[in-house]
Amino acid sequence: MSVSTKPASGTRDFLPAAVAARRAVVGVVQRVYESYGFVPIETPAFERLEVLTSKYGDEGDQLIFRILKRRDALPALTPELRPDDLTDLALRYDLTVPLARVVAANFASLPKFFKRYQVQTVWRADRPQRGRFREFYQCDVDYTGTTSLIAEHTVIAAASEALASLGFSAFEIRLNDRRVLTGALELCGISPALHGATLTAVDKLDKVGISGVRDELAALGLGESTIDALAATLLGGGGRARLDELAARFADGSPTGAAGAKTLQDLFAMIDAAPVSGSVEFDPTLARGLSYYTGPIFEIRVPDLAGSIGGGGRYDGLIGMFRGSPVPAVGFSLGLERILVIMEERGMLPSEPTAAEVVVAVADEGLQSLALRHAAAVRAAGLRAEVYPELTKLGKQLSYAESVGAQWVIIVGKREADAGVVALKNMATGDQSVYPLGDAVAAMLAAHPTAAT
Amino acid sequence: MSVSTKPASGTRDFLPAAVAARRAVVGVVQRVYESYGFVPIETPAFERLEVLTSKYGDEGDQLIFRILKRRDALPALTPELRPDDLTDLALRYDLTVPLARVVAANFASLPKFFKRYQVQTVWRADRPQRGRFREFYQCDVDYTGTTSLIAEHTVIAAASEALASLGFSAFEIRLNDRRVLTGALELCGISPALHGATLTAVDKLDKVGISGVRDELAALGLGESTIDALAATLLGGGGRARLDELAARFADGSPTGAAGAKTLQDLFAMIDAAPVSGSVEFDPTLARGLSYYTGPIFEIRVPDLAGSIGGGGRYDGLIGMFRGSPVPAVGFSLGLERILVIMEERGMLPSEPTAAEVVVAVADEGLQSLALRHAAAVRAAGLRAEVYPELTKLGKQLSYAESVGAQWVIIVGKREADAGVVALKNMATGDQSVYPLGDAVAAMLAAHPTAAT
Repeated sequence: MSVSTKPASGTRDFLPAAVAARRAVVGVVQRVYESYGFVPIETPAFERLEVLTSKYGDEGDQLIFRILKRRDALPALTPELRPDDLTDLALRYDLTVPLARVVAANFASLPKFFKRYQVQTVWRADRPQRGRFREFYQCDVDYTGTTSLIAEHTVIAAASEALASLGFSAFEIRLNDRRVLTGALELCGISPALHGATLTAVDKLDKVGISGVRDELAALGLGESTIDALAATLLGGGGRARLDELAARFADGSPTGAAGAKTLQDLFAMIDAAPVSGSVEFDPTLARGLSYYTGPIFEIRVPDLAGSIGGGGRYDGLIGMFRGSPVPAVGFSLGLERILVIMEERGMLPSEPTAAEVVVAVADEGLQSLALRHAAAVRAAGLRAEVYPELTKLGKQLSYAESVGAQWVIIVGKREADAGVVALKNMATGDQSVYPLGDAVAAMLAAHPTAAT
Repeated sequence: MSVSTKPASGTRDFLPAAVAARRAVVGVVQRVYESYGFVPIETPAFERLEVLTSKYGDEGDQLIFRILKRRDALPALTPELRPDDLTDLALRYDLTVPLARVVAANFASLPKFFKRYQVQTVWRADRPQRGRFREFYQCDVDYTGTTSLIAEHTVIAAASEALASLGFSAFEIRLNDRRVLTGALELCGISPALHGATLTAVDKLDKVGISGVRDELAALGLGESTIDALAATLLGGGGRARLDELAARFADGSPTGAAGAKTLQDLFAMIDAAPVSGSVEFDPTLARGLSYYTGPIFEIRVPDLAGSIGGGGRYDGLIGMFRGSPVPAVGFSLGLERILVIMEERGMLPSEPTAAEVVVAVADEGLQSLALRHAAAVRAAGLRAEVYPELTKLGKQLSYAESVGAQWVIIVGKREADAGVVALKNMATGDQSVYPLGDAVAAMLAAHPTAAT
């Protein structure tokens, strides 16, 4: 019995074309992020369990992959044990909490404003479904060490320029502020104990519509008049005029809401004066799931696509959970998988084959070493080359060369070897000529001007 | 109480300089591997447990990190449970077993000879110690689909050229064959049940010396005369003459040993005719730990360094464990961590800073948006630029620019803004001049000719 060859549920194997596409996209994003002064870090795949727990909310806690203790550290199994007694490590769930730990650990040696990007895999024990994976890449930028709105402006500008550089032309950046949400709930008289559940319902407006949200709010026990008030505050549409209107309402009833609205007004003014790629709009229903956000929050959406392809916000308390004293920070995370899916559907993906350009075919016995030397000479000239490893009919060797996408086949036969030449076949045209090896290499380079750089 | 900021035991955080060094090294290795026609794949961090177990020997099985089942799939904890009842997924332990699974899963659509490289992290629950980590990168090349020695030649040539391209000049490739080892044990009359333990002892010759190995063999219950015979066969030194001598001995007593010796003689002849970087030698004590090897095995060693920096071999049975019918294969794995440690100690690492080249300092209130626009213009010209985010003394802003390694500071003050100019400070020389922004950009580019490419 052979073992199943499927990858684990919710994970994928990436074959060469997929790796090449992913690398090309990541390369563009990295170049843009570096142009803004962000520098790369990498953190381990797993963290001590206590680093990750209580950072992502109850639902997030359930979705963290935990690693079983090593056999010699595993306690005897008894019904009294809790599952967390079996584990002391867990897989990276996002890139923000590891960044917070790294900033706290290296605070004295890092620049005052540490601006890092990070492109690594994260793992979530979600139920796998179409387009949702248990293993996926995130591309994050984070700006730590300042409460200045230049930090918000910079991460938004960098993320939107990354999308623009990938070829996305129409996308919308939606802004809100956690304090605007808190202020609205305060104005409507909703008790703090219900804030989280209420925002989770409000956040679903796009998915379930206004009546769906009203049903969920009623199920939480909110009365008709409270729901009406909330609908008038948060569910009545977005836009800049709406933000100004909310700011005026908060002026009387909610200092928290007023602070949030003022921050957003200032951020909009800064974006007006120093524009970013994409349009920017106020969306009072935007809530973002993660519990660590404290100020402005944002999402990027692409037309005709449900859900966001990236988002982020300010989290001024998280690093302090590791450092003791707070360090302000703001970040933006792009979802690489969704970006790749859209780019593939829309034919935006670059195609950069990396397989051999030249296959050296061996037509007669005793010539394999000569073929290996020819391949080495072709490589030294800057072309990718391999030797067909078996003695077989030339037709099979040419078929193989075609299957890997080679543009040229060099044929080494006894007659050519005796004459000190090779036959060079152009796979696109079928033309075949006989040259000394050096001339064959020159002919290939002449037809392929980028190779020898 | 704040949480500890240490990474998990045996893992490391990589700060920007370390990431840059790692990327530069991986880039060189990838370029060489691609020049040989190898193409990249990536596989998931975790596999179904059954994919990994029984592939690495008993010791390896113990070192696989297992992932705890999700709460809803976890059985009630009772003393009757075995630890493996608690887990159904495990972290990647090497890159060879995942490759074997991928080749079996995609056999019909892959080229007849699938030649892949893979640079990913692996995890082993080893006891952490100096230079030994629980998370580390491997760089593997594997050549599947043929028993031709061109496959061995190709993976050895590619791995040794990768090291040469990184700047290693003196290194030695040691060759042996699993069948030579089996043949030697057969000649000495050692029962098959003791082959594994005997080879483990022989493999330690470099570490414990000949008398240490003899002690270990005696502890296995081997008699004095058997140990003498083994010492004369395997422990009497290496070299090509030694290989020919063993081949002659096998001709009478061990068809398995004879086949292994003949293969190595043919491989040496091919390397003589088509040389690879580095010297190549026969080492009859080389055993390699992993249980899946079936033919030639190899290691690369650097002078003055205990242990190998890479190794591999032929494993003609592994893919068949997933596919049902066998697919021959041979691979070579470079240990990136050891390569990086040596390159750092020897000053061989390239230094490629990626932080901002230009910091835009803001000297007066109300100018942050102008500074953001200036930074955007500098970026558009191909230089990495950031804005100092806070209003503070110019001296602090200059110190920050120095701390990130910026070569230039653009100073935006009220007087300059009114005059439509900026002050440009060269951080290396301290020189400062006033220009229109476009001229300042031109001055920076003139001093930094590679930026705008």
